[in-house]
Amino acid sequence: MNVSLDEICSILKRENNFYILTHQYPDGDTLGSANALCRALQKIEKNARVLCSDKIPKKYNILSRGIKKQEFDADYIISVDVADTQLLGKNLLQYSSKIDLCIDHHASNKAFAKMQYIEGDSAATSEIIYELINLLGVKIDKQIAACIYTGITTDTGCFKYTNATPRSYRIAADMLEKGIDACAINRIMFDTKSRSRLEIERQVLDSMEFFYESRCAVIHVTREMIKKAKANESDIEGLASIPRQIEGVLVGITLREQKDGTFKVSVRTDDDINAAKICENFGGGGHQSAAGCNFPDKLDAAKEKIVAAVGFAFEGK
Amino acid sequence: MNVSLDEICSILKRENNFYILTHQYPDGDTLGSANALCRALQKIEKNARVLCSDKIPKKYNILSRGIKKQEFDADYIISVDVADTQLLGKNLLQYSSKIDLCIDHHASNKAFAKMQYIEGDSAATSEIIYELINLLGVKIDKQIAACIYTGITTDTGCFKYTNATPRSYRIAADMLEKGIDACAINRIMFDTKSRSRLEIERQVLDSMEFFYESRCAVIHVTREMIKKAKANESDIEGLASIPRQIEGVLVGITLREQKDGTFKVSVRTDDDINAAKICENFGGGGHQSAAGCNFPDKLDAAKEKIVAAVGFAFEGK
Repeated sequence: MNVSLDEICSILKRENNFYILTHQYPDGDTLGSANALCRALQKIEKNARVLCSDKIPKKYNILSRGIKKQEFDADYIISVDVADTQLLGKNLLQYSSKIDLCIDHHASNKAFAKMQYIEGDSAATSEIIYELINLLGVKIDKQIAACIYTGITTDTGCFKYTNATPRSYRIAADMLEKGIDACAINRIMFDTKSRSRLEIERQVLDSMEFFYESRCAVIHVTREMIKKAKANESDIEGLASIPRQIEGVLVGITLREQKDGTFKVSVRTDDDINAAKICENFGGGGHQSAAGCNFPDKLDAAKEKIVAAVGFAFEGK
Repeated sequence: MNVSLDEICSILKRENNFYILTHQYPDGDTLGSANALCRALQKIEKNARVLCSDKIPKKYNILSRGIKKQEFDADYIISVDVADTQLLGKNLLQYSSKIDLCIDHHASNKAFAKMQYIEGDSAATSEIIYELINLLGVKIDKQIAACIYTGITTDTGCFKYTNATPRSYRIAADMLEKGIDACAINRIMFDTKSRSRLEIERQVLDSMEFFYESRCAVIHVTREMIKKAKANESDIEGLASIPRQIEGVLVGITLREQKDGTFKVSVRTDDDINAAKICENFGGGGHQSAAGCNFPDKLDAAKEKIVAAVGFAFEGK
């Protein structure tokens, strides 16, 4: 059942013991939303607690500052920024069928809770939490502001992605006026790299090759490279955007070795080169500017095939 | 003489032929300010032209879209985002003593013009231009909005620097409502690297060494490396921020070889390590978290000295 923010306010005022569930592999938005709401509830003398299936990465420690650690049994369970119960992670799956209220900004939300409030056009769930806390009449202090700002900036890639709306910017402006150090938050969220990330980036840059008068750049990531860098999934995130960032490169290719030694290829394009069409040659697909396909080949063979397909795409351009 | 925005409006309405001067090595703010103002003036049937001493880097082409190329002699000369006539560059130095009005956000502005309007607490000159165009009663269209947004986002490092104020975010929100593609602008301004930048980054990452349980990271940039990468000044900008971005690194050191073979060292620190104090050992100085000094030594000797000084700074921490 869909509910309004007003109805949610009534519930939050009526109930007393809240668990707030976040999604697994937690990010700035799920943790920012949860901690902002938790602190707001504690400010109106409720018991509230943030739960996450995973260990919270150190960089998010700033979000739970000043939250009282309370031990109690919940009589009301809320999930924030969780699109599907599968995303709760194994340690929170026990709550799957017990979620009273789901607050989320994913249009794809599975409506798994007894009640839900979904705003598919919000850049971040934190934007909804901001509105909710205001409606609730709780004053947004510096700590809540830091949580909300973090949720918005992380989900918009520091205001870089298309999802950032005028509202995102305006809420951020309000949060700055609460005295947060937005610069420090962005530095922690965006400008801190693990040693492993650094190492894998170094290797990936070393692997870069150029084709077709440098209009196509190709990198690869092998399991050997990942092992050498001691890299985990999050260290590898976003590597596929590196080749197309280079001036003059219209097609960026990333070949990533799978467990079975085959290669998954990601194609990023600019201008009028259709990435999906390139990948369809190999049974893959995607969008105009980002697509993927798989090759049951060794690195050199896979590279040769995808580069040849890029050549066809350049023909007549 | 200081003037108000209202007075500037009267002047802009009265005069007819405007040159708008930008600073050398032009950036998004000087060009965004100049092109926004130029377009606004053209919209009220004035002759207006943007001048720059240097060739405009391709990535800023989006800013002059739709500007009419007009040939005329100026009867009123305005400089935007120029703190000092020295910064006009050699091709505009002829106007040094002829500037009627200077609009700028640098508190250090030399007040070289007949009249000036300086807002030292604006993140970007484009913020002032936004206010001015509104006061002038010219409707901010999508193209003007793109210029103003570009000025703000480039001068705040995509809203990452401490100079970004609530006003910066709110003006950006307004500009989004004019239909600009902020995502594309930020991609062009921030996520595009030259081949030379890529190459110098690759070499710099290869040069990285760690000391003191990885709390100190050191990179170097030699003239040989710069030559190999065919890198220019702008390709090298910001390299000094790389070492301190690594998780756990409290002191990041960058040694850069000078023309005479000596080394300029930049020290960036976190937490309670005082960068200025480290550099003062060698006759340098700076701030708590960013400082510099020079070594009349070869690379290895300079590195050994600065790393030893970092060791002393760590003592007892």
